[in-house]
Amino acid sequence: MLYDRLDHRRKQLSSRAPGLDLPSPYLLFLGDAVDAGYAKTAFGLRDWAPEKCIGELALPAATVTTGLPRLSPAEAAAAGARSMVIGIANSGGVIAPQWMPALLDALDAGLDLVSGMHNRLNDDARLGEKAERLGRRLIDVRTPPAEIPVATGEKRSGKRLLTVGTDCALGKKYSALAIARGFVGRGVRSDFRATGQTGIMIAGGGIPMDAVVADFAAGAAEMLSPAADPGHWDVIEGQGSLFHPAYAGVSLALLHGSQPDVIVVCHDASRPTMLGHPDFPLPHVAEVIELNLRLGSRTNPAIRCGGVTFNTAALEPDEAEAMLAREAERLGLPVADPIRGGSRFERLLDSCLG
Amino acid sequence: MLYDRLDHRRKQLSSRAPGLDLPSPYLLFLGDAVDAGYAKTAFGLRDWAPEKCIGELALPAATVTTGLPRLSPAEAAAAGARSMVIGIANSGGVIAPQWMPALLDALDAGLDLVSGMHNRLNDDARLGEKAERLGRRLIDVRTPPAEIPVATGEKRSGKRLLTVGTDCALGKKYSALAIARGFVGRGVRSDFRATGQTGIMIAGGGIPMDAVVADFAAGAAEMLSPAADPGHWDVIEGQGSLFHPAYAGVSLALLHGSQPDVIVVCHDASRPTMLGHPDFPLPHVAEVIELNLRLGSRTNPAIRCGGVTFNTAALEPDEAEAMLAREAERLGLPVADPIRGGSRFERLLDSCLG
Repeated sequence: MLYDRLDHRRKQLSSRAPGLDLPSPYLLFLGDAVDAGYAKTAFGLRDWAPEKCIGELALPAATVTTGLPRLSPAEAAAAGARSMVIGIANSGGVIAPQWMPALLDALDAGLDLVSGMHNRLNDDARLGEKAERLGRRLIDVRTPPAEIPVATGEKRSGKRLLTVGTDCALGKKYSALAIARGFVGRGVRSDFRATGQTGIMIAGGGIPMDAVVADFAAGAAEMLSPAADPGHWDVIEGQGSLFHPAYAGVSLALLHGSQPDVIVVCHDASRPTMLGHPDFPLPHVAEVIELNLRLGSRTNPAIRCGGVTFNTAALEPDEAEAMLAREAERLGLPVADPIRGGSRFERLLDSCLG
Repeated sequence: MLYDRLDHRRKQLSSRAPGLDLPSPYLLFLGDAVDAGYAKTAFGLRDWAPEKCIGELALPAATVTTGLPRLSPAEAAAAGARSMVIGIANSGGVIAPQWMPALLDALDAGLDLVSGMHNRLNDDARLGEKAERLGRRLIDVRTPPAEIPVATGEKRSGKRLLTVGTDCALGKKYSALAIARGFVGRGVRSDFRATGQTGIMIAGGGIPMDAVVADFAAGAAEMLSPAADPGHWDVIEGQGSLFHPAYAGVSLALLHGSQPDVIVVCHDASRPTMLGHPDFPLPHVAEVIELNLRLGSRTNPAIRCGGVTFNTAALEPDEAEAMLAREAERLGLPVADPIRGGSRFERLLDSCLG
C-alpha cells in the first residue's frame, strides 16, 4: 500500500477533476456494421443521449442505421458536431483498417475522435500524426485520468445512489440511466455518473473503473461523485458484483468510494449462474442487499436499499408483471423493470428519494 | 467489465508466468543512508533472505550498515552476485542523483539493477542507454507483469494460507514470512508469495498488487499462487484490509484470487483507528475473521481461520504474554506475535497445518 501517497492526497482533493470529459455533440460512426448488436454503443447513445447525437456516418457496406441524419464529417462539423464517436463494439475491440479513411476525414473536418475500443486511437501512427498536426484530440475512453488520488473515506455533501448487481451485465447501467432520467423528470437535480465505456460516452464523461489501478479504485469512485449541493443526486453506474470471483474487488472499491445513501440491486431471474463462471450460482437478491448494506455502511452508515430492478427481457408482459409483484411482496421493497417503467418504477423512484 | 477478455482467459491459463522473477544473489545498495529506517528494504532482505545477500555497497556519507561484507560491484560480481538492489526507501521514493555513479558502475560490473522506488530505473536515460548497450536488465519491482488474465475462480490444487489484517502496515508481510519459515522448518514444502515491493525482493519474485489494474487484481492473485502438489503450501502476503476505506477492494480481490484454505488475521492492539484515516475505528478481530471467512468462502468453501498474530512491539515481554493469553482465551484460537515466536507461535503453526 502506498503510504507515501497519503500526503499528496489532501492536496489533490482540492484540485479534483471529474474524470474524462468528452466533446459533444457527436457524429456517430457505424463503420461497416451489418448487425445492430455490433453498433450497440451508437444505439445506446441515440437512446440515452439523443441531445448529444447530431447524425450518423456509415460505410457503404453497413446495413445498420440509428435513424439519425446521414452526414459527412464536414456536414456534421458545420451542424455543430465536435467529435466523431466510434459507435461499434466488434469482436476483439479492434479499429478495423477499412475505417481509417473515415477517421482521417473526420480529423480533417475539424472533429475530435472518441473510441472505447481495446486498441487505442493514440497508438495509431497515422491518426496520431494527423491529430497532432491539426490540433485534434484522440480520446480513448478506456484510459483513466492520470491523477487519481487514494481514497480518503471522508463523507461528501450531496446524495448518491449506486446500482449494484447479483452479477455483471444484467442492467446496472440501464437502471442507473433510467433512475437518473426519472429523477430529472421529477425536477430533482441529478447526474448520471458513468463507470464503463458506453456509459461514459452517454454521459459525456466519467471514469472507466475497469482500467484504474487497484490501489486507486476507491479514489476514482470518490473523484467521480465529488461533493455537491445537499439536494443533488449522483446516480452512479455500478460494476460487477460483490459475489463475482473476478470483479468483486472493483465492486467493493466502487461501493466504498461512492459512499451511496441508496443502493438499487439489479438482477436477472433467468440467469442461474454467473456469466462466464458456470460453477458459481447467482446469489439471492436478499443476500446481495444485505452484503452491500453491510460493507457500504463502512463509508456511509446511513446506506439503505431503495429497491430492486429485474431484467425481464426474456418474459411476456403478464409473466413479467406477475414476477415483479411476487418479488416485491417477498422482498418488501419496490421491484421494477426500468425498461418497462410504469407505476412499479415510479414507486421505486419514490422509495429511492425517501 | 471486460467480457471480451473471457475468451483470452482460458488460453492464457496454460501459459501462466509466476510474475516478477529477480536475479539473485544481490549486492545491497545503501546509498547515503544515515538512518536505518531509510534502509529497511536492505534490512528486510538481510533478515529474511540472507542466502540471497552477498554483500553491501554504501556511499562514503552513509552511516548505516547491514553487517554484510562491503563489496564493490566488481567484487560482488566476482563473488556471484547477479544484481544490485536499491535497499533504500527514502521519502518520496526517488532515485537520488548522487547514487547514479554507483548504479552505472554496477551495470559496468555485470550486475542488473533492481528497484522498488516510485521513479523508475527504466525512465532514466543514462541508465537505459547503458543497460541496453551492455545487455543488463533494469527491473522496477513496482511494475506488474504485462499479461495478467482475468480471474477464473476455478479451484487450484495445493494448499494456500493468506495473511489478512484489521488494517494496513501491522505485520501481514512479517507474519507470512514467519509462517512460511516455520512451515519449512517442519519439513512442509512451502513458498512465501509476495504482493508488495519489499516482499518481492525478499522472495525474489511476486506481483505488486498495488500496481495491478483493478479488473485483473483477482487474476493476479490466481497467477501468484498457481496449481501445486496437494501437500504444498503457498503462504501469501496480504494487503490492506476489507475494512479499509481505500484498499478494501484490493484485499477482496486478493482473498478471492488466493482462495485460501487458511487465513491468519494480523492485528495491532495499540492502534485505535485506521492508519491515516482517524475517523475509521479499527474493526474487532472477531469481525475481521468472520467477514474474511464469509467472503473467502465464495472461492473456497473450506476456508478457515488458523489463528491471529498480534504486533506487540509496543509492549514489554510480560505485558505481551498477558495480552496474547487473554486474546487466545477470548477468541478460542492460537494468538502469537511471530517476532517473539515461542510456543504460542508453534501452536499457531499447528493450527494452520490442521
